[in-house]
Amino acid sequence: MDDLTALMSFLRKQPSMSSATVAERRAAYDRAERAFTLPAGATVRLWERNGLIGELVDPEHPVDGRTVLYLHGGGYVIGSPRSHRHLAAAIAIAASANVLLLDYRLAPEHPFPAAVDDAVATYRLLLQDTGSQRLAVVGDSAGGGLTVATLVAALSAGDAMPAAAVCLSPWVDLTCDTTAPPPATIDDPLVKTEDILAYASSYLGAIPATHPLASPRFADLRGLPPMLIHASTSEMLAPDSMRLAEAARVAGVDVTLEMFEGVPHVWHWFWPRLETAKVAIAKVGTFLDDHLDGGNRQQRKLK
Amino acid sequence: MDDLTALMSFLRKQPSMSSATVAERRAAYDRAERAFTLPAGATVRLWERNGLIGELVDPEHPVDGRTVLYLHGGGYVIGSPRSHRHLAAAIAIAASANVLLLDYRLAPEHPFPAAVDDAVATYRLLLQDTGSQRLAVVGDSAGGGLTVATLVAALSAGDAMPAAAVCLSPWVDLTCDTTAPPPATIDDPLVKTEDILAYASSYLGAIPATHPLASPRFADLRGLPPMLIHASTSEMLAPDSMRLAEAARVAGVDVTLEMFEGVPHVWHWFWPRLETAKVAIAKVGTFLDDHLDGGNRQQRKLK
Repeated sequence: MDDLTALMSFLRKQPSMSSATVAERRAAYDRAERAFTLPAGATVRLWERNGLIGELVDPEHPVDGRTVLYLHGGGYVIGSPRSHRHLAAAIAIAASANVLLLDYRLAPEHPFPAAVDDAVATYRLLLQDTGSQRLAVVGDSAGGGLTVATLVAALSAGDAMPAAAVCLSPWVDLTCDTTAPPPATIDDPLVKTEDILAYASSYLGAIPATHPLASPRFADLRGLPPMLIHASTSEMLAPDSMRLAEAARVAGVDVTLEMFEGVPHVWHWFWPRLETAKVAIAKVGTFLDDHLDGGNRQQRKLK
Repeated sequence: MDDLTALMSFLRKQPSMSSATVAERRAAYDRAERAFTLPAGATVRLWERNGLIGELVDPEHPVDGRTVLYLHGGGYVIGSPRSHRHLAAAIAIAASANVLLLDYRLAPEHPFPAAVDDAVATYRLLLQDTGSQRLAVVGDSAGGGLTVATLVAALSAGDAMPAAAVCLSPWVDLTCDTTAPPPATIDDPLVKTEDILAYASSYLGAIPATHPLASPRFADLRGLPPMLIHASTSEMLAPDSMRLAEAARVAGVDVTLEMFEGVPHVWHWFWPRLETAKVAIAKVGTFLDDHLDGGNRQQRKLK
C-alpha cells in the first residue's frame, strides 16, 4: 500500500467530529503540534505587534528580507499556529523565506470581517518591513480564501501588492455551492457539507455569503499578483479552485492552477507522511522563488 | 477602589466554569495569550527536544546560562505556555534568566505520572546544558506540586539538585484535605473544592492520592534545594503551602514561606493589573538572584 492509499484509508476511519464542540474541534486540530515535529533547521519565535499575534518561522538559510504571510485554514472557526506550524515550517524551508503564521481572530467569537481586518493589518506591517518585492501571501482552505480577500481589500485601500500569492485548496465560495463537478468524482474524507455550512454561518453572521471579501470568487480580482492555486481532483472544494482560477484569468491575473489526483483537501498539511505533499510544497517553493526578489535557487529539500 | 479590591470583585463576578468541558476550560485559560501582552524586552521561541515541547522565554539581559524550568498550573488538566507566557516572561525579567515554559502532557489524556516524566526529562536536559548552579525550578498551583515532585524524583534517581526552587500557591495534597485553617478565613474566588476533586481524579486515575510524587507533601524532602513558597492567607490551598513548608523544614530544607494577605490563588498571574503581584514577582527574582550563580543584582523592574 502506498502512502496516499494508507493516508486516505486512515482519514476515512477517523471518527466524525460532527457532535464535537468548537473548543474540541480546535483542540483536535491543534494536536498537530505534537503529532508532527518541525523539519530540521526551522526555528519558531512568538510574534506580537499592535495586538496582533502569531509565530515567525525561520528556515536555516532565509533569503534576506524574504517573508511569507501564512493564513491557516479551519473554516474561519478552528486552526492556529499550533495546527499549521509544521506546514509553515516546510514552506519556509522550500521558499527560503521567513514565514509569519498569523493567529487571526476566529468565529464565532469574532465573525467577519475580523479575520480580514487582522490579515490586512499584518500585511501592511510586513509591507513596511520588507517591501512588496520580497513579500508573498500564502493560505490554505479558508486561509486560501482569506489570502485573496486580504489582497482585494489591501488593493482597494491603495496598498502595494506582494510579489506572489498561493492558495492551497482554497475555500472561496461561502454559499457552499459545490454542484460542479458532479458529486460522483468527489471522494473527500475531510470536508463535509454540514461542516462548511456551519462554519460559513458562524463566520458570516448577518452578512450575505456572496460578500466579495467573504467569498472572493465574487470579488473583482483585477490587479492581483501572480497566483498559484493547488487543488485535488477529488476534494469537495475542487470547484472553488476552478472558479477562483477562472475569475482570476478573466481579470487578467497571471494565475496557475495545478490539480493533483485523488489527494486529500490541503494534502500539503500531511507532508510528514505523504510524498506527494512534499512534491507540492516544493512546487510552492519554486513558484515563490521565481517571483520573489533575492532568489538564490538553492531550494532546500524536506527530509 | 484599589487594584486588589477591583480584581477580587471582578473574579467573584466571573461565571462558573463548572459545566464547561475540558476543552472549553483549556481554551478559556489560554485566552491569557491575548488578554496579556508580553512585558517589553521579552522574546519567545518555540522549544522542542526529544518529543518534549515548550517555549523558551528570553529576557533582554539574561545572565549567561541562567535558566528557570517553569511548570504551569491548571490542576494537571488545563494550562499551557499560552496561559502562562506573560507570567513566565515576568519571572524571566525579574530573575535575569531564560525561562523554559514546559508544555507537559495533561490529564485526562495523560494521567500521572506523565507530567512528572516530562518535567524530569526536561530537568535533565537543562542540567546537561547549564549545570545545577545556574538552574532553578519554579511552578504555580499544580505546577508548584509538580516542581517538588520533579525534584524528589530526580534526586532519588541520582540527579544533581538545582540551585533553588520556587512554589507559588502550590497544590501538594491531592487528597484535597483543606480542613485547616478553618474555612472561615478562606475567601477564594478561583479554587473550588469540586474542581480540585475532579482534577485530582482525572490526574490520579487508579493511583492513591497519597502517592508522594502526586502529593509531595507526603514525600521525603531531604536533600531538596533552598525553596521559596508563596501563598495567600485567604486561598483554599493555603494549608497546602503551610504543610509543604513544615515538611520541608522537618526534612532540613532551607525553606522560606511568605504569606500574602487576601490576594487570589497564584496572584502573580495577574501582574499586569495587580501591584502586589509585581511585588511578589520581584521577591521571586531576588530569591533566584541570591541563589543562582552569575548574579548581577541588576534586577529589572516590571513596568
